[in-house]
Amino acid sequence: MLRKTLLNSEASTYYTLIGNTSIKRYFHTTRTVYNSLSSTKTSNNGPTGVVFMNMGGPSTIEETHDFLYQLFADYDLIPISKKYQDRIAKVVAHFRTPKIEQQYREIGGGSPILKWSNYQAKEVCKILDLQNPQTAPHKPYVAFRYANPLTDITYQQMLDDGVKRAVAFSQYPQFSYSTTGSSLNELWRSIKKLDPNRSIVWSTIDRWPTNQGLTDAFATNIRAKLNEFPVEKRDKAIILFSAHSLPMDVVNQGDAYPQEVSATVQKVMETLNFSNPYRLVWQSQVGPKPWLGPQTSDICEQLASEDQPLLFVPIAFTSDHIETLHEVDIRMIGASPFKENLKRCESLNGSKIFIDSIAQLVKGHLNNSNTNLKNPKNLFSNQLRLDFRMGDSFDGINDPLDVFGDHSKH
Amino acid sequence: MLRKTLLNSEASTYYTLIGNTSIKRYFHTTRTVYNSLSSTKTSNNGPTGVVFMNMGGPSTIEETHDFLYQLFADYDLIPISKKYQDRIAKVVAHFRTPKIEQQYREIGGGSPILKWSNYQAKEVCKILDLQNPQTAPHKPYVAFRYANPLTDITYQQMLDDGVKRAVAFSQYPQFSYSTTGSSLNELWRSIKKLDPNRSIVWSTIDRWPTNQGLTDAFATNIRAKLNEFPVEKRDKAIILFSAHSLPMDVVNQGDAYPQEVSATVQKVMETLNFSNPYRLVWQSQVGPKPWLGPQTSDICEQLASEDQPLLFVPIAFTSDHIETLHEVDIRMIGASPFKENLKRCESLNGSKIFIDSIAQLVKGHLNNSNTNLKNPKNLFSNQLRLDFRMGDSFDGINDPLDVFGDHSKH
Repeated sequence: MLRKTLLNSEASTYYTLIGNTSIKRYFHTTRTVYNSLSSTKTSNNGPTGVVFMNMGGPSTIEETHDFLYQLFADYDLIPISKKYQDRIAKVVAHFRTPKIEQQYREIGGGSPILKWSNYQAKEVCKILDLQNPQTAPHKPYVAFRYANPLTDITYQQMLDDGVKRAVAFSQYPQFSYSTTGSSLNELWRSIKKLDPNRSIVWSTIDRWPTNQGLTDAFATNIRAKLNEFPVEKRDKAIILFSAHSLPMDVVNQGDAYPQEVSATVQKVMETLNFSNPYRLVWQSQVGPKPWLGPQTSDICEQLASEDQPLLFVPIAFTSDHIETLHEVDIRMIGASPFKENLKRCESLNGSKIFIDSIAQLVKGHLNNSNTNLKNPKNLFSNQLRLDFRMGDSFDGINDPLDVFGDHSKH
Repeated sequence: MLRKTLLNSEASTYYTLIGNTSIKRYFHTTRTVYNSLSSTKTSNNGPTGVVFMNMGGPSTIEETHDFLYQLFADYDLIPISKKYQDRIAKVVAHFRTPKIEQQYREIGGGSPILKWSNYQAKEVCKILDLQNPQTAPHKPYVAFRYANPLTDITYQQMLDDGVKRAVAFSQYPQFSYSTTGSSLNELWRSIKKLDPNRSIVWSTIDRWPTNQGLTDAFATNIRAKLNEFPVEKRDKAIILFSAHSLPMDVVNQGDAYPQEVSATVQKVMETLNFSNPYRLVWQSQVGPKPWLGPQTSDICEQLASEDQPLLFVPIAFTSDHIETLHEVDIRMIGASPFKENLKRCESLNGSKIFIDSIAQLVKGHLNNSNTNLKNPKNLFSNQLRLDFRMGDSFDGINDPLDVFGDHSKH
């Protein structure tokens, strides 16, 4: 039997320095940690932090400007200029804020990504407490790259909570230097700033593009949505797997992302036994530079017709966010003359298959990794060192072994 | 017990019209068909043709010019101009011939692709004769897009041989409109020209990017080549899967190829249990327009060092050809100051695992397809119709059902 124990119910107030200019108050969401007292033994190593890392989005309209500033200031994501990045980010954020605020208004007043991340992380920790008592209690955290809760905030909370062992769990199933790489670089900066004595021992799940539960969850949601088409249209619907695009500069530097997104698509289609024609397309291009295509909107325009049903599947995010709720739902589907023929697959959000499977993923990771640096094992994927060698950051990770494993000084 | 039966040993001479300008003599390679007389029953439907389709390459230096002309004249491969393609192709072929002839000289006087294709097709038919008597005898054919034997030549030979049922078996495991699409478009033109009464009933294996035997064969060759590195270097070798690139124009139109190549890479790495870091890279870019990257040569230059072993794996062709033997072996590895650390994985060529697996693939295809157009089944993949809808050709396939299935007029 599962009993809820309220471990931390105070609404804590943090003051976060955003950029160099403005101080924003951030109310840390009330966090409830569940423990199964009947089956969980607390291990001697103190709580295990399970940290969901993602780009995040503004939970309220007011946070939009700071979110945009953080985003455009990230050289790892949008390499504009090592010298002028910050200044350009301020200008771009200033000019884009009204438009993007309006978009967040149109999807209900903010991004749901924090709500879903909190829910998913909490549910995963409940499962881990039940199934993996040797690393219990498990404490759920969210660390966003551009929105609250930012990495520094979450790190401080983890220190306050006495976390000794933590998993940086990227919520981008497919690795890009500009997303997961950026989040891990930020984690490294937080470690150096807030935890120089290395009281928290870290490892990371840096990619999981073909995780069976992930692709099963996608396939289940796709089948459900296909079934909403009339029978005569169902089989001829084209599935458009849509992922956030990358600038060709980043692709041509050897970023792992396009290959890994493709791998996810293939495994989902295998699970569906290739029931429908499909295509991998790319969305959310901004600016004048070339990005990886084909563009989702172009292909939608080319293929959609009275006779041609299309099903959009967001394949590189696990929660709803502005790119699904606004870009696809409102701008592509809503604005199409053939909208009756266009549907979007549910994002994974609260999918039970999905949450169960990522709990198993974390469990396997915890049990198969060795944080002792004399014999480190599975602290990160076999790709990560190469990713950081090929990527280019301001003050980023040089060797992942500097970040992960037991560096505690005692 | 297997007994060799020489069914067709005459060296036939064909005169092929190449372009509009030159007539070239082509000596059709002596073809031997093996039958297992002990286990094979000849079916009532006459011989089954197994047609290995590929781009081909000049078997002799003298064929280089015509190969280049055919290649640059193919709008499906290199969309230059619907109006001036042919004229431009003549000029480009003229100017590139001396350089490319020199490259073929440096790899031994011609491309080995015909030799390997003949061998693979023959071996596959031997296996099919043994294992699938209901469609025997199986007759091996090769149809190249740009070199001898061209599709028309092979088609005429098949008609002369009395073939009734044939499988167009693309030797590009991953579908691109510019490769497999182009070969199938050419087949369609041959059908209309040489077989208007549709005496041969066709189906196609148009893609097989994650065929188990294919990826096992790659993994086996990779393991063998990794073992040639000294023990201390083996685990840190980076595997560079190198595929022929595509112009970004083609990628951005929604060509299936990048996703399918990525899928092959993923499955090979799964088979290897992600033993080494890897990257998918793209080679053979020509001309000033942007192509899909990262470029193999750039990544090689960036990563190769005294301390960094690299293993090149040609992942999108099944035989050796100029891009492996010259571009990788001579220009990248041979010219590198770190050549001791650079190796290339064997191409599949005569790999027994590979040949067995593609025989099973053809067997499954023959047994699971229904050519009756009242109830057509598995005549082509569920993707092919979309590929032809998105592609853009001169005189190409509109609907694959026009080409495949039983259209015989009797």
